[in-house]
Amino acid sequence: MNTKFGFCDLGFAKLDIDRVRRRGFAEAVYCPGKDKIHLKKICAGFIRNKQPLLLTKLDKNTNSFLRKSIPGLKYNPLAKIGYLIQNKTIVKKGQILVVSAGTSDIPVAEEAALTAELLGSNVVRLYDVGVAGVHRVMHKIEELRKAKVIVVVAGMEGALTSLVSGLVSCPVIAVPTSCGYGASFNGLAPLLTMLNSCSPGVVVVNIDNGFGAGYFANLINTPKE
Amino acid sequence: MNTKFGFCDLGFAKLDIDRVRRRGFAEAVYCPGKDKIHLKKICAGFIRNKQPLLLTKLDKNTNSFLRKSIPGLKYNPLAKIGYLIQNKTIVKKGQILVVSAGTSDIPVAEEAALTAELLGSNVVRLYDVGVAGVHRVMHKIEELRKAKVIVVVAGMEGALTSLVSGLVSCPVIAVPTSCGYGASFNGLAPLLTMLNSCSPGVVVVNIDNGFGAGYFANLINTPKE
Amino acid sequence: MNTKFGFCDLGFAKLDIDRVRRRGFAEAVYCPGKDKIHLKKICAGFIRNKQPLLLTKLDKNTNSFLRKSIPGLKYNPLAKIGYLIQNKTIVKKGQILVVSAGTSDIPVAEEAALTAELLGSNVVRLYDVGVAGVHRVMHKIEELRKAKVIVVVAGMEGALTSLVSGLVSCPVIAVPTSCGYGASFNGLAPLLTMLNSCSPGVVVVNIDNGFGAGYFANLINTPKE
Amino acid sequence: MNTKFGFCDLGFAKLDIDRVRRRGFAEAVYCPGKDKIHLKKICAGFIRNKQPLLLTKLDKNTNSFLRKSIPGLKYNPLAKIGYLIQNKTIVKKGQILVVSAGTSDIPVAEEAALTAELLGSNVVRLYDVGVAGVHRVMHKIEELRKAKVIVVVAGMEGALTSLVSGLVSCPVIAVPTSCGYGASFNGLAPLLTMLNSCSPGVVVVNIDNGFGAGYFANLINTPKE
Amino acid sequence: MNTKFGFCDLGFAKLDIDRVRRRGFAEAVYCPGKDKIHLKKICAGFIRNKQPLLLTKLDKNTNSFLRKSIPGLKYNPLAKIGYLIQNKTIVKKGQILVVSAGTSDIPVAEEAALTAELLGSNVVRLYDVGVAGVHRVMHKIEELRKAKVIVVVAGMEGALTSLVSGLVSCPVIAVPTSCGYGASFNGLAPLLTMLNSCSPGVVVVNIDNGFGAGYFANLINTPKE
Amino acid sequence: MNTKFGFCDLGFAKLDIDRVRRRGFAEAVYCPGKDKIHLKKICAGFIRNKQPLLLTKLDKNTNSFLRKSIPGLKYNPLAKIGYLIQNKTIVKKGQILVVSAGTSDIPVAEEAALTAELLGSNVVRLYDVGVAGVHRVMHKIEELRKAKVIVVVAGMEGALTSLVSGLVSCPVIAVPTSCGYGASFNGLAPLLTMLNSCSPGVVVVNIDNGFGAGYFANLINTPKE
Amino acid sequence: MNTKFGFCDLGFAKLDIDRVRRRGFAEAVYCPGKDKIHLKKICAGFIRNKQPLLLTKLDKNTNSFLRKSIPGLKYNPLAKIGYLIQNKTIVKKGQILVVSAGTSDIPVAEEAALTAELLGSNVVRLYDVGVAGVHRVMHKIEELRKAKVIVVVAGMEGALTSLVSGLVSCPVIAVPTSCGYGASFNGLAPLLTMLNSCSPGVVVVNIDNGFGAGYFANLINTPKE
Amino acid sequence: MNTKFGFCDLGFAKLDIDRVRRRGFAEAVYCPGKDKIHLKKICAGFIRNKQPLLLTKLDKNTNSFLRKSIPGLKYNPLAKIGYLIQNKTIVKKGQILVVSAGTSDIPVAEEAALTAELLGSNVVRLYDVGVAGVHRVMHKIEELRKAKVIVVVAGMEGALTSLVSGLVSCPVIAVPTSCGYGASFNGLAPLLTMLNSCSPGVVVVNIDNGFGAGYFANLINTPKE
Repeated sequence: MNTKFGFCDLGFAKLDIDRVRRRGFAEAVYCPGKDKIHLKKICAGFIRNKQPLLLTKLDKNTNSFLRKSIPGLKYNPLAKIGYLIQNKTIVKKGQILVVSAGTSDIPVAEEAALTAELLGSNVVRLYDVGVAGVHRVMHKIEELRKAKVIVVVAGMEGALTSLVSGLVSCPVIAVPTSCGYGASFNGLAPLLTMLNSCSPGVVVVNIDNGFGAGYFANLINTPKE
Repeated sequence: MNTKFGFCDLGFAKLDIDRVRRRGFAEAVYCPGKDKIHLKKICAGFIRNKQPLLLTKLDKNTNSFLRKSIPGLKYNPLAKIGYLIQNKTIVKKGQILVVSAGTSDIPVAEEAALTAELLGSNVVRLYDVGVAGVHRVMHKIEELRKAKVIVVVAGMEGALTSLVSGLVSCPVIAVPTSCGYGASFNGLAPLLTMLNSCSPGVVVVNIDNGFGAGYFANLINTPKE
Repeated sequence: MNTKFGFCDLGFAKLDIDRVRRRGFAEAVYCPGKDKIHLKKICAGFIRNKQPLLLTKLDKNTNSFLRKSIPGLKYNPLAKIGYLIQNKTIVKKGQILVVSAGTSDIPVAEEAALTAELLGSNVVRLYDVGVAGVHRVMHKIEELRKAKVIVVVAGMEGALTSLVSGLVSCPVIAVPTSCGYGASFNGLAPLLTMLNSCSPGVVVVNIDNGFGAGYFANLINTPKE
Repeated sequence: MNTKFGFCDLGFAKLDIDRVRRRGFAEAVYCPGKDKIHLKKICAGFIRNKQPLLLTKLDKNTNSFLRKSIPGLKYNPLAKIGYLIQNKTIVKKGQILVVSAGTSDIPVAEEAALTAELLGSNVVRLYDVGVAGVHRVMHKIEELRKAKVIVVVAGMEGALTSLVSGLVSCPVIAVPTSCGYGASFNGLAPLLTMLNSCSPGVVVVNIDNGFGAGYFANLINTPKE
Repeated sequence: MNTKFGFCDLGFAKLDIDRVRRRGFAEAVYCPGKDKIHLKKICAGFIRNKQPLLLTKLDKNTNSFLRKSIPGLKYNPLAKIGYLIQNKTIVKKGQILVVSAGTSDIPVAEEAALTAELLGSNVVRLYDVGVAGVHRVMHKIEELRKAKVIVVVAGMEGALTSLVSGLVSCPVIAVPTSCGYGASFNGLAPLLTMLNSCSPGVVVVNIDNGFGAGYFANLINTPKE
Repeated sequence: MNTKFGFCDLGFAKLDIDRVRRRGFAEAVYCPGKDKIHLKKICAGFIRNKQPLLLTKLDKNTNSFLRKSIPGLKYNPLAKIGYLIQNKTIVKKGQILVVSAGTSDIPVAEEAALTAELLGSNVVRLYDVGVAGVHRVMHKIEELRKAKVIVVVAGMEGALTSLVSGLVSCPVIAVPTSCGYGASFNGLAPLLTMLNSCSPGVVVVNIDNGFGAGYFANLINTPKE
Repeated sequence: MNTKFGFCDLGFAKLDIDRVRRRGFAEAVYCPGKDKIHLKKICAGFIRNKQPLLLTKLDKNTNSFLRKSIPGLKYNPLAKIGYLIQNKTIVKKGQILVVSAGTSDIPVAEEAALTAELLGSNVVRLYDVGVAGVHRVMHKIEELRKAKVIVVVAGMEGALTSLVSGLVSCPVIAVPTSCGYGASFNGLAPLLTMLNSCSPGVVVVNIDNGFGAGYFANLINTPKE
Repeated sequence: MNTKFGFCDLGFAKLDIDRVRRRGFAEAVYCPGKDKIHLKKICAGFIRNKQPLLLTKLDKNTNSFLRKSIPGLKYNPLAKIGYLIQNKTIVKKGQILVVSAGTSDIPVAEEAALTAELLGSNVVRLYDVGVAGVHRVMHKIEELRKAKVIVVVAGMEGALTSLVSGLVSCPVIAVPTSCGYGASFNGLAPLLTMLNSCSPGVVVVNIDNGFGAGYFANLINTPKE
């Protein structure tokens, strides 16, 4: 297998094993739509090349299948993340706060939180503080202000983002979720809300993309030498 | 558990137990997307804090699961509402009329009607009076004119709203439903129809949001001291 | 110029002069986006081939320009139709009723009415009878029931279509208009309303397509020998 | 049960039994989303009032359920229509041609054809003549020209409508279908195609609305006394 | 002119002069898209029938034109409302609060406020209190809680609605505005936000429909005898 | 059965058996939505008329059903293509390169590759070379430049197309896939990306339309005599 | 100025002067949105580096401005193309046919035709042969079959593409145009039509992208050595 | 004027003069849709409260108007930013790189670059390095890798974002622009592309929101004490 040019060629897949050097962390594997056998071979390829494994949107059945050939594989069913990471020792200084608007947004929030933790960040969770009862978030203002970066996860109307951003001086990463029904149009409503935030200091990732938000939060939290 | 600051902190959830004082009614629980164990703990938390329970979009299976630990939980399968409300004694004076265009709109109409009743309003139902046979609604014009507020529930083209509103002097709350097919685009068609009503006195809630319409109708029916 | 094969080839245009034989009426000319010189040559070509002229969506300036070389050209500025039709003698028996919901819909309604008249139909107009004041249309129920075919022109929510259709046994052609603002999305709202009409006996044409509705109404009104 | 005012009030439903007098044919019943028990009572109500039954989008299971209490109920599984119609004797003079672009469009085409037949029209079917092999439709040009009204059923790009309309002098009713994938967006593509037809003489009904097209075709085919 | 049947027939228009009796207030006139001469005749017709005049979305030029024949016509250029109302004497008891998120939303907010005032309500304005600086709205919490009904006008992401609604027990009417750019899609973003509000007690009107919100707020503020 | 006019009339279907002569290859059969019995008869009809069989989007169950009556039917489960092609002997000179961005795009890429092969082209596959690790595609630049035509298959953001096109002088055919979630909106995102490619030399086919891309690539690879 | 690395760095722009070598033709300049001074400098930079100039979507005023400093600049106002190309001598063997559905589509068709000509192809034009009068295109079937590649330009419903493609064995490139109104949604309707073409052998470019179609047609017409 | 509670109440506006303390920088003023007189008063209010001025999307005419009463106001016509900032002395250590895909994207790129500079960051510009000529960006890889944070500004298909992100380890902020035509749908295409980026480490702001991107980039570049 050719790995000289920075990738491991499996024929149907080209594992980007140069990524740690280039980007600071190995390639994560997005699982949906992939053949189980393919997925197994991809995992084996990464392990053989001494790369950490991070599998996103991994459902329970596929996890069970993979675990047979990867005994140490860990799995968080709420975040739907599978992982096998050796040396998660250097924890960064800054604190990442992951905020969710409602309890239905917790799976995506957990995906963000766990991703950032696996990448070496210290994460605090603050869940179920939507704007319909604003005293809940106001009460936690000290925690908001202590964070180096905040991830806000919200479905339905997604209004929590602007509120939180208006209270702090740190960057805010907004994650719209597909929670809701009718005119939420599977997450379009909070996506548009967040893109139109009247509060500067807000950026947005794809609907339900907790992984992307956790990854980006960790990037901000990683000092560039 | 901290309830001093107006909420009961379950970690994964922060129950807004200040809401009765602040808003006149306790927090309702939107069930889809919530973990069963979480839902059970949320219900327990509200009961422990002597709050009434109102669970919306609750499916039959989850209701069966919850009833095991909440023996008195009542359930209306058509409206998909579960509830446990002690003192529903003070019925308000005004009458709320819930009108549905077709028989397929009845589940959403029932959600609106039952919500308003549970909140203490007197509700009259008038179902299946769509504009394709306008004599049906014309025949009931006395009932329309007696209402203090009218909820109109309609899918497909949603034309009933403007017609009803044009006949009465009371406020009309329009609920688009996802009934229909093709170019109804899951309720987008009646939603746009209702938002563009040429008759003043009409407001709109989310597609299939019977709860929101019933809640708002009851608000109008509740005199401010 | 080659007209042997049923069209007159102007190079940039191929006038379909076989259309009267094939379809019962000559090709109408949709004016927007056409070069003035092209338009003038197209008109000249049709006149040379003894075809009637029917120009749609013709603005005032272009009409003034064309009239210089086509002295007899008639123009209706409300309907934005220019025409030059010799023998409009055989008026058909049935009566076409053109109904408009509001006064802002009149230009499109006039386009429909004038088109049908130019094609030889007898047209009655009934304007400004939107559903916000339903007694206006109810009062005209005799006129509705006398029609052989009805064209309903409506913007905003377009609810008039189903109401009218529910009262009569004749075919109803619905024309959504771009009148309105906000969530009418330039006519999308009434277009969807009309496509989802719960009353059978309704068909729809493009937004603002008064010409198409008038043409189709006349077709129904034209007995097939 | 009150039927004096032109409807039969079942509480949850108001059967429009005045419709034959007013519109020429009884109310058809759109089945999806209706409770089975409700549907059964609605059928019983119509039968009791000596109305013909026409049930659209009726699936096999519900048909089996209904047949238990309505022994004579007929069912066409391709068109998904259930019916019980006594005196279908007076067949009208004109001929309706139902054209489908592909074989996947046949269920909607059958819904249109059967509806028109049940309402008393004579129907000819011409299936699988899409524009990708235009000689197929050209070969049938005599049949096209004999029709009093043509229904064109097409999914994917829906281009057949304009082609057919350009060849004939009779009215054409276009039915977009949800056949296709990707950028057909469940029928949006052929819907827009048909609404923008450059050939006058075309009108459009909702996506997959074979019933509406058949109903309208029969209306045109029904001479007004 | 026939006014016996509740409307005044001008041929091109049918003025609904029965509306005060039926609905409590006369027909308002939506100006865009109407011919100036038509508009003038409509105004004259209402005045002749002793109806109050309320003209919405009236631009400056048309106002100047109308004032020539209607000397007493008043005009508010910010709200774009023209009016001529005799006896605005009975001011209702409750107070309507109109809240705007930003200064760019003021024209729509003024349309709502002036409409409610002209209909007889007492209105308080609270402008520029968007969520990016939440202390501004928190500081005004007493004013929020005093209101009988609140109108919230907001563009961009429209998050203010849920925040305000979560603080009060009165009904909240949300008006999305077309302020903003890019992914606000001319008001679609705040419209969806508001429809998906996680706070019950919120209803929505069309984008930029200040008139509709003011009208509805006044309805709630009008006690039904 | 009438085949004199270039088609074989099965009643419900009109097989275009003139297509080889007219277009160079027989009619392919799109399987979804077709009745199994119909499909079987269509296959039998083509075989009887000595046409090659090419069945697209054929699922496993239907393949099993068909194989019973068509013993030699071959099936590729990844590409979801069934086929029965006699004389695939003349392989064309040029080489088609099929490139996929990720491993989840492989099924659509295989549909393109196999289609081109069955039509007589020589195909090389280059999979999993998305832009997130651009060295992978850069390393294969010789292969890119050797191709006579390139098919690029990509979901999510679809950015690979412009990159590849910018490196080569041959035509590039872009196939958006429905891989992804959230704001990919089932393939809308890569579809728009590809249509807006800033690199000339790119054309686009429908979402997931591997067949269309392979067909077109083979067309370019087929010299016109 | 650095041109060693294949581009000429103007600071605000990096002219890709390696493109002829890499892709066979120089970079074309898309003019809208560019500052006039920038555009002038870009042109000067290409001329200095002995590159041919091809300016697309160039309006008349900007052309007049540029001509002052580039005396030899040629301009085609219909195609909105400016150009300065020295040695257009080697004309390729195959013939490109550019077909337009209506006369309003001619500007985009001319952009395609002129682009292909400037790149060295022989182009034949066939305009105004839309499907509403199909005999026009049928009469030209010999010309269609002689072409090596066909560009079909069509607005409104765009149905011409499938018809043409079904008649020939060569590749067809479809260009949707923004001609039309209402539900054409600025070209969305023909774009979707063309993407869903039921005839294989069709690919699509962006709405109004005549340049892209002409470029691609020339690519197919350019034999790879 | 009340400034005790952290805002300066101008009646129509409530200037958030607490923002420097709370968020690190004063409130920026979005100019479109604001009355000139209002805008002038808002500027005066900020100056009076010793706040820096930052006016976004400010057109030339309004700038000329404001300069009359604010003599020192500076204006960058490309970035459309007006400003008046006293002590921009502490330049931060890290370097922000602003990359644009094409020259038409420069205005938005300049808005981002100037915003970050005014907030105290050191900015490097790298313009016109779109993926159609990838050697341009590859040649600048050292500059890409030196940056602490990168802003990528791109219209049309927006593919540059993923490419750049895949090459670096720092955070990337993507700004879609409304440059382009047809299926770019005013920036929707690059917005969706960027949201679906297959490369982690990418976040997105609103279409044309250069200000938001520059603000966020500066936030990342600002070390939290």
